[in-house]
Amino acid sequence: MINLTDFGGDVSEVRPKTLIAMGRDVADRLLTGEVRDRLVRIADVDPDLVASDFADPAVAGALAAAEVLYTGWGCPPVTAEVLAGAPKLRAVVHAAGSVKNHVTEACWERGILVSSAAAANAEPVAEYTLAAILFANKRVLDIARLYREQRAGLDLESRFPRLGNYRRTVGVVGASRIGRRVIELLRPFELDVLVADPYLTEDLGVPHVELDELFERCDVVSLHAPALPETRHLVDAARLARMRDGATLINTARGALVDEDALVAELASGRLYAVIDVTEPEVPPADSPLYDLPNLLLTPHIAGSLGGELDRIALLALDELARYAQGRPFAHGVTAEALAISA
Amino acid sequence: MINLTDFGGDVSEVRPKTLIAMGRDVADRLLTGEVRDRLVRIADVDPDLVASDFADPAVAGALAAAEVLYTGWGCPPVTAEVLAGAPKLRAVVHAAGSVKNHVTEACWERGILVSSAAAANAEPVAEYTLAAILFANKRVLDIARLYREQRAGLDLESRFPRLGNYRRTVGVVGASRIGRRVIELLRPFELDVLVADPYLTEDLGVPHVELDELFERCDVVSLHAPALPETRHLVDAARLARMRDGATLINTARGALVDEDALVAELASGRLYAVIDVTEPEVPPADSPLYDLPNLLLTPHIAGSLGGELDRIALLALDELARYAQGRPFAHGVTAEALAISA
Repeated sequence: MINLTDFGGDVSEVRPKTLIAMGRDVADRLLTGEVRDRLVRIADVDPDLVASDFADPAVAGALAAAEVLYTGWGCPPVTAEVLAGAPKLRAVVHAAGSVKNHVTEACWERGILVSSAAAANAEPVAEYTLAAILFANKRVLDIARLYREQRAGLDLESRFPRLGNYRRTVGVVGASRIGRRVIELLRPFELDVLVADPYLTEDLGVPHVELDELFERCDVVSLHAPALPETRHLVDAARLARMRDGATLINTARGALVDEDALVAELASGRLYAVIDVTEPEVPPADSPLYDLPNLLLTPHIAGSLGGELDRIALLALDELARYAQGRPFAHGVTAEALAISA
Repeated sequence: MINLTDFGGDVSEVRPKTLIAMGRDVADRLLTGEVRDRLVRIADVDPDLVASDFADPAVAGALAAAEVLYTGWGCPPVTAEVLAGAPKLRAVVHAAGSVKNHVTEACWERGILVSSAAAANAEPVAEYTLAAILFANKRVLDIARLYREQRAGLDLESRFPRLGNYRRTVGVVGASRIGRRVIELLRPFELDVLVADPYLTEDLGVPHVELDELFERCDVVSLHAPALPETRHLVDAARLARMRDGATLINTARGALVDEDALVAELASGRLYAVIDVTEPEVPPADSPLYDLPNLLLTPHIAGSLGGELDRIALLALDELARYAQGRPFAHGVTAEALAISA
């Protein structure tokens, strides 16, 4: 079990002046119980004051005094103008994944320290992916559907000759935080794992191959690459064509990575399977074929943190806030350079 | 990764005279490629002679000479009468899970050594269970169904407030080989695990609680107990009533453990969820409500080894045969005493 929270570390001499900045609904859900109790213990903060708009006069005083912003989903961009009203601001501690939407160039220029809870957000995505891989190799959902339709015993051996999670090959596209966690979670199983990532230089303990080779060799291909101009439609008709008959594509990353029309064509022919948690647009139009394909498990962007999983993120961010209060460096600091090639 | 196969161990002075005994179809599927090659290297065996009926005159000679039976699903019972025709028989190496259907009292009385590949068969069941747990806590299948029905964004937070795999409680009923493997596979996750088993004396590193307490405290309850007279309908209406609203019951063990009428009632009310791989009878009648309940994932006894997973079993059994040939004790020996309280 990874220990993402560190409850022993809340004692510090100085409670930094902190302003909460996120969507109002996010704050209502996130800042309750244990999270709220710890927040007021670590920081000098008004837990009921939430900046969901930095232009709101009600937050101007707290912004002017704030040394830290404790941010979450819905935090507006911290622009040069916002920074002008926050002369004491030194750090942004983000209780969510990507900081791209609110940490602007101006923050980096001023040398604001940034921490992200992306590590905690990676966990549920990797878990969803692991379960999807184990079910895909075993054809669990497909068999369940056939069983329900036929209401009789099935001849599985002739229908699915290569069934199961023994000596199958799983490809991880992108050695991102999530991709690495997926590789780690796959270790207890007798599966061959491949990874493809143009920026990967370390040895992750699994063969590092070219993308095309990965698509050709794998029974399951799982996407964990960021959405960047160069990854748009990374999975296009040609790459899909390289996949083995009966292989499964899993996308929990971003819809833009996949050419959906090409994927729909391969799924409609019955040649491939897919587990798709992200689409473009995020909710497909009501007449989209994605809703009807029997060999597709389609979910509405749920692999990341939801419900109780938000506590893990909020607590990781509080660990970071406690480290800051004690004058220690962030355990999950973000730099402008690392951000340019990640999600 | 558990190393179930041991390819270095095939060299021995004496290749024991071995007879294959299993269903003809099982043999056709199992004894190919690497498995067949290793079998003839380790044992003095006719790989094309399969005893699916010990009364068949064609197998009488091989049976009379056999020191080992290499058995699989569909092996007929090794009765006193069969043993009378097998004066040299010393061991039964089973390339499948339970030996209860073919290893008779007469075998134990004669001191026949018995090995089972139940350890290899436990693996896929534990994998299916792990995936089912991760998906259950995240309500993946339920959300996918709603998304498909509504073809629009869903308000997940209000509909599923406690979603996710963080700090949820999973109960393992039965510290069997499979139950223990499930506990092991759950270690990387931030889930609380409880175990209930009246025969458990060891510390498995997770709290050992009474069965009723387990049903009351868990978000997911997974059954890994054997079908015995005293476990029949272990999950009855009263136990189901103890389960929390929205909890999930997983049964990959035996249909007899669950009072299906009581389960159907709880599922029909929408109070509970279930993942059911085994039923009583094995294939429910065509008019069974089990086929129609939206909050039930019903599969036709697929959690155990299928397809490529049969290779893992056959190879484990060959490791055992190699150990026997070298005069070493079985790594997966079975005794009559252990068998009485297991599957």
